[in-house]
Amino acid sequence: MGVNSYSFRVRYAETDQMGVVYHGNYAQYFEMGRVEWLRALGVTYKSMEDNGIMLPVISLRIDYKKSALYDDLLTVETQLKSKPMVKIEFDYILRNEAGELLATGNTVLAFMDKNTGRPIRCPDYILDKLQK
Amino acid sequence: MGVNSYSFRVRYAETDQMGVVYHGNYAQYFEMGRVEWLRALGVTYKSMEDNGIMLPVISLRIDYKKSALYDDLLTVETQLKSKPMVKIEFDYILRNEAGELLATGNTVLAFMDKNTGRPIRCPDYILDKLQK
Amino acid sequence: MGVNSYSFRVRYAETDQMGVVYHGNYAQYFEMGRVEWLRALGVTYKSMEDNGIMLPVISLRIDYKKSALYDDLLTVETQLKSKPMVKIEFDYILRNEAGELLATGNTVLAFMDKNTGRPIRCPDYILDKLQK
Amino acid sequence: MGVNSYSFRVRYAETDQMGVVYHGNYAQYFEMGRVEWLRALGVTYKSMEDNGIMLPVISLRIDYKKSALYDDLLTVETQLKSKPMVKIEFDYILRNEAGELLATGNTVLAFMDKNTGRPIRCPDYILDKLQK
Repeated sequence: MGVNSYSFRVRYAETDQMGVVYHGNYAQYFEMGRVEWLRALGVTYKSMEDNGIMLPVISLRIDYKKSALYDDLLTVETQLKSKPMVKIEFDYILRNEAGELLATGNTVLAFMDKNTGRPIRCPDYILDKLQK
Repeated sequence: MGVNSYSFRVRYAETDQMGVVYHGNYAQYFEMGRVEWLRALGVTYKSMEDNGIMLPVISLRIDYKKSALYDDLLTVETQLKSKPMVKIEFDYILRNEAGELLATGNTVLAFMDKNTGRPIRCPDYILDKLQK
Repeated sequence: MGVNSYSFRVRYAETDQMGVVYHGNYAQYFEMGRVEWLRALGVTYKSMEDNGIMLPVISLRIDYKKSALYDDLLTVETQLKSKPMVKIEFDYILRNEAGELLATGNTVLAFMDKNTGRPIRCPDYILDKLQK
Repeated sequence: MGVNSYSFRVRYAETDQMGVVYHGNYAQYFEMGRVEWLRALGVTYKSMEDNGIMLPVISLRIDYKKSALYDDLLTVETQLKSKPMVKIEFDYILRNEAGELLATGNTVLAFMDKNTGRPIRCPDYILDKLQK
């Protein structure tokens, strides 16, 4: 249940007229974080969807500490909060290149069968990888 | 082949740190324009998709004249350019509340069968409505 | 401290390949909600910024209940949670045209002096309007 | 006037319910292309803005050939079209990891004095770097 770090640069399109990153765009940053966390585990979210499993977000929490600026090289640290069952929960920490804390976040996602739309348990191939 | 006008207010999220609407967001404005043009004709794009027809954009042209600002009430005028065959082409004019010309645009979209991914002709129920 | 309702239609651009509105876009919906809440009170957020006051978001919470779909006519109900001091807090309820509950949300924003970047108290002209 | 290549991964948020990247998002991809073209030249757009020069887009053209998909690793090739004067023009080619052509594009941007809002000539420090 290690932490995965992923770095990316703020796009101009992501700023607003306050001169900082629009607060709603952090949802995309956290998403990149958990997608790369999964990839580091050896799973792609794309392949999960191709195999009939979706992961809709059921809750999102963001606490904003300091503004992210255009062209900043940001790093999102993603950490699994507990063993996934029918849901999977992640904590996020967003920092700029100077290491300053910009935001913390949390998302809960639900494993869902793509065809039936019904909740399902976390697939074994993910649980297996988590135990290694 | 009349013109349809659709008005909407600029969202904060649509601005960038230049203090104006981010240029890429005009693609959404033109899309709202043609969706409302269709609705005025008596067709919803949603029902077209539900009936197996998609309309991917194959070209987009935008000429920017004057900036759109946060909270501006904009109006997009959408005009069909010619009788649709396998493609459908629209011209757009974007104005602010003072009537100032902000941008002109053009899109070409292709009728596509959702299941096969192959191009198809404009459905008759649209051609019929256009002749009235 | 009444509730303000604001309705708008889901844009195609707001959907993702899950076939529903991308979860991060709800931040924009809630923003429209509080902007229209302010307008109903007789204040525009634009004029506040023009007069040197900014309202950065310091926390965002969203609980997703049911998916919002393309072309849905959504309504966001925005309610002030308590008398604003240096912060202002809103609760949101998002429903579709059938009245189904799609999401609930909460944001806390801070009054900030645009020039100094320092926190300030809620301007009197807003408190005055709230007492009427 | 060499070509700069920049690679990035498609975000889930960038897809729409057609199951492909929303066409309007290509504007952001081309923007990343020219920002990285400038960086490769030894200039950051951020420093240009900090020094009082803005580069608003005055025209955008995109021709879509093949869909970009979620999680695809895309590469945008950015090429300066001619010696910049009061405007600067770029051509773009977007490819996926298999090298397939997804789209071509063109943007014209204007050099603008941030304080006066008036057009200006391309700064000498850019012209100098182009001649090397």
